[in-house]
Amino acid sequence: MTPPISRQWIVAERPTGRALRDEDFRLQTTPVGRPRAGQVLIQTLYLSFDPAQKSWMENVAGYRAPTQVGDIMPGSGAGRVVLSENPDLAVGDLVAGPLGWSEHAILGASDLTRIPDGVSIPAALSVLGTTGKTAFLGLTHVGKPRAGDTLVISGAAGATGSVVGQIGKITGCRVIGIAGGPEKCAWLTDELGFDAAIDYKAEKVRSRLRELCPGGIDVFWDNVGGDILNDALARLAVGARVVICGGISRYNFDARDPSQMPPGPRNYFNVVFTGATIQGFLMNHFEADYPIAEARLLAWVRSGAIRFKEDVLTGFENAPRALMRLFEGGNFGKQLLKVGED
Amino acid sequence: MTPPISRQWIVAERPTGRALRDEDFRLQTTPVGRPRAGQVLIQTLYLSFDPAQKSWMENVAGYRAPTQVGDIMPGSGAGRVVLSENPDLAVGDLVAGPLGWSEHAILGASDLTRIPDGVSIPAALSVLGTTGKTAFLGLTHVGKPRAGDTLVISGAAGATGSVVGQIGKITGCRVIGIAGGPEKCAWLTDELGFDAAIDYKAEKVRSRLRELCPGGIDVFWDNVGGDILNDALARLAVGARVVICGGISRYNFDARDPSQMPPGPRNYFNVVFTGATIQGFLMNHFEADYPIAEARLLAWVRSGAIRFKEDVLTGFENAPRALMRLFEGGNFGKQLLKVGED
Repeated sequence: MTPPISRQWIVAERPTGRALRDEDFRLQTTPVGRPRAGQVLIQTLYLSFDPAQKSWMENVAGYRAPTQVGDIMPGSGAGRVVLSENPDLAVGDLVAGPLGWSEHAILGASDLTRIPDGVSIPAALSVLGTTGKTAFLGLTHVGKPRAGDTLVISGAAGATGSVVGQIGKITGCRVIGIAGGPEKCAWLTDELGFDAAIDYKAEKVRSRLRELCPGGIDVFWDNVGGDILNDALARLAVGARVVICGGISRYNFDARDPSQMPPGPRNYFNVVFTGATIQGFLMNHFEADYPIAEARLLAWVRSGAIRFKEDVLTGFENAPRALMRLFEGGNFGKQLLKVGED
Repeated sequence: MTPPISRQWIVAERPTGRALRDEDFRLQTTPVGRPRAGQVLIQTLYLSFDPAQKSWMENVAGYRAPTQVGDIMPGSGAGRVVLSENPDLAVGDLVAGPLGWSEHAILGASDLTRIPDGVSIPAALSVLGTTGKTAFLGLTHVGKPRAGDTLVISGAAGATGSVVGQIGKITGCRVIGIAGGPEKCAWLTDELGFDAAIDYKAEKVRSRLRELCPGGIDVFWDNVGGDILNDALARLAVGARVVICGGISRYNFDARDPSQMPPGPRNYFNVVFTGATIQGFLMNHFEADYPIAEARLLAWVRSGAIRFKEDVLTGFENAPRALMRLFEGGNFGKQLLKVGED
């Protein structure tokens, strides 16, 4: 097989301190190389999107290896092996991994996960991938829910938040989701079994939390930051755990210069009266537990105990648009992009 | 003995959302009652001062039983038993407890601690009292220092901070204190054995922390809040523990209305990259460990492993002034007031 021509999205500018825009990305076309010993050539079928990718473009310290202007835009995806120089992966195998925004990628087997039989690519890229593992590992290691706890989640209809809430229900928690709009809220309560949902676009989050959490919040999972984090800190129960997973309200500010960042939570001091804990994490802090997370999630998805939703755009040219949707609250379900024929 | 006449300081106004002022207190004179069965009458010898007392006057939720305008100003102190209706306490015994700002107090034995032989009243009211217990319990339960950790303390020359740092040295930590002025900084390094001190009035805290903590801060003990907390959060090591003990920079704002509070730490989100924990506590969350704390502190004070400093005003009429000094950084050492002859 002759190595194909491949389109790639290049990081053209760093979006530091502002929203993403079209000029931050540049489409290029290059011939694809050949895999070396141990590597495979993959045809990309789906790309997967996460808010942290904007931070990668900015090279925010702490997140991952540096990304330079001119690099292929980093990102996760799934595809089919089309050339193999590795005995463990055969042509036709479906794999997931850090493909980048490229129609083809060359990677070693150690960077790739084979997608199990009976698992769809959207499932592999969401609830059974980084998203689901983040939910399971962050909730069990940091949130530490107990049966009967009141668990509140911001960004609850998002790919991570919706899995957190469902694991919370399995754990015996009362689960309240905060999301934007009646459609997302109805999905949480009617489809996923959340006990209640707060529409932050139409309701006062602080007074709704007061009504819904008379005994306080035992576990707060935050994907948002800003006013919603502040409102939750006002309702902490004694011994509460606040899990800082994301801060979508903050990602358009310049993290290199803290004086440019929005204010932190004014009432962080409530942790004194409650003995509460505010803790952050990255998924890889709990790498030793990946096999446990993967096994549990697979079983729960197969049994129907955990459901998920994907929001799929089509066409490689739409990759920048797909990423921007995350910051506009535009997606409903895990944001994916279908690139090729699967 | 005829019950004496006693002077008392009354809460005249709530100092919510502003600094303390003279008109918040009113001096009154009343006859002292007689102790009932189980109680004792105490002549106050010393009063002890803590920033939380301003929050008590404001009735900030979470701190303690409500304080009303017209109540005797609550506070800790020490005195001599002058009438006893309790077989466990004899006339002449020295006791510490919640005497309030009154020249005499009537309390039950369960509210009082007998001051051990060989312990001075200033020691009983500082390093061997609430202050020292807060330091020991907060550091061991929340800060969880390991030998070799870098421990940074704000308000380090204060009554609590200085004990935290010395327990940190006993634990094998590298200890860096942040304090105001060269005299306090010299005391930390020359007298207490801190490894370094930062004078926040003369130095840039953020850049000094960068120089002094090349591997990051493992434990940050915060008595201050505001910019100093923000600067410390910028230097967290992986797995750091941030102990929220106090927030002296915040106590003149109105905690009932979070929109009036100063901004929280802009870079709280650094806990994500580091997996760090921000946790608060009140001393009574760890009540079960009071005997351990008291025994350790007594042994360390007797051996000279822990030193302390008191800052003593004299005269009952100066009680409001003694409390105000805490918010002006005016005291150097535990703020006490000598009221009577001991």
